[in-house]
Amino acid sequence: SCTEAVLAEAAGAAARPCPCPLPREDCALSRLLRRLLSARRSLDICLFAFSSPQLGRAVQLLHRRGVRVRMVTDAQYMGLQGSQIGLLRHAGIQVRHDQESGYMHHKFAIVDRRMLITGSLNWTTQAIHSNRENVLVMEDAEYVKPFLDEFERIWEEYNPTNYTFF
Amino acid sequence: SCTEAVLAEAAGAAARPCPCPLPREDCALSRLLRRLLSARRSLDICLFAFSSPQLGRAVQLLHRRGVRVRMVTDAQYMGLQGSQIGLLRHAGIQVRHDQESGYMHHKFAIVDRRMLITGSLNWTTQAIHSNRENVLVMEDAEYVKPFLDEFERIWEEYNPTNYTFF
Repeated sequence: SCTEAVLAEAAGAAARPCPCPLPREDCALSRLLRRLLSARRSLDICLFAFSSPQLGRAVQLLHRRGVRVRMVTDAQYMGLQGSQIGLLRHAGIQVRHDQESGYMHHKFAIVDRRMLITGSLNWTTQAIHSNRENVLVMEDAEYVKPFLDEFERIWEEYNPTNYTFF
Repeated sequence: SCTEAVLAEAAGAAARPCPCPLPREDCALSRLLRRLLSARRSLDICLFAFSSPQLGRAVQLLHRRGVRVRMVTDAQYMGLQGSQIGLLRHAGIQVRHDQESGYMHHKFAIVDRRMLITGSLNWTTQAIHSNRENVLVMEDAEYVKPFLDEFERIWEEYNPTNYTFF
């Protein structure tokens, strides 16, 4: 199948078998990294919180390879200690953020406009190492399309040239 | 199709059309309620945070109708003000919680072991009314099965008779 459910529950029981020799969290993380690093043309990321150095390095690597990376995040969380957002901006990656009091709470990424990665997982070290989380990877257009549309809508809505100043 | 992507982004732009006459957040919420209330035999819920009175009432209604409701949640969040967990327990619904320092961060429910509802949305009033969120509803076995397995694994792991006391 072109689709696959990846349950990345990181914490707790050791009873869940994993086919690779890495620790469980590295195993789920390495599968996520492999999906991201398969990007050839574009990577659209929409994340409430992003602090994982490994995932940050992967995104920067794609940017250096010429992949068009766009990043949307939550204004309240992007300035917190450990956030990767400043590093991504410094590397020249376009980042936009919400202007609302509520949270931009999505946790998804779209690779080459055809592979959706979504779930409960924020890309944080705490989530990867200590939380019970899920990540779904899917290529069915019926699922990918609404998230692509949502990304484009948010990307325009958070365009700084559209801000209204009070 | 038996599957449907429901993007329940509640906050922000009014430009997104909705086929029903309710306000946008009520529209997405009413669609979620309708899916839940379609349960005939079982409802398995696995949520980091649960404070929405409407969703709490729906779960209690299903319990009174004889639907087997099982609830898993995060220990750190279930005691917070506004949590529905105490009310659900008081109504006789079985609730189990994690024993870990990390978060039980899943946000999914499974209706009659065949319909998966998952996404970024915690069932909180703040998330429904103010956040940008997504909810996926899917009946494909390839997606439902891993979440069913995860639920059963967690349900057993969090069984109080299995606790180790130090």
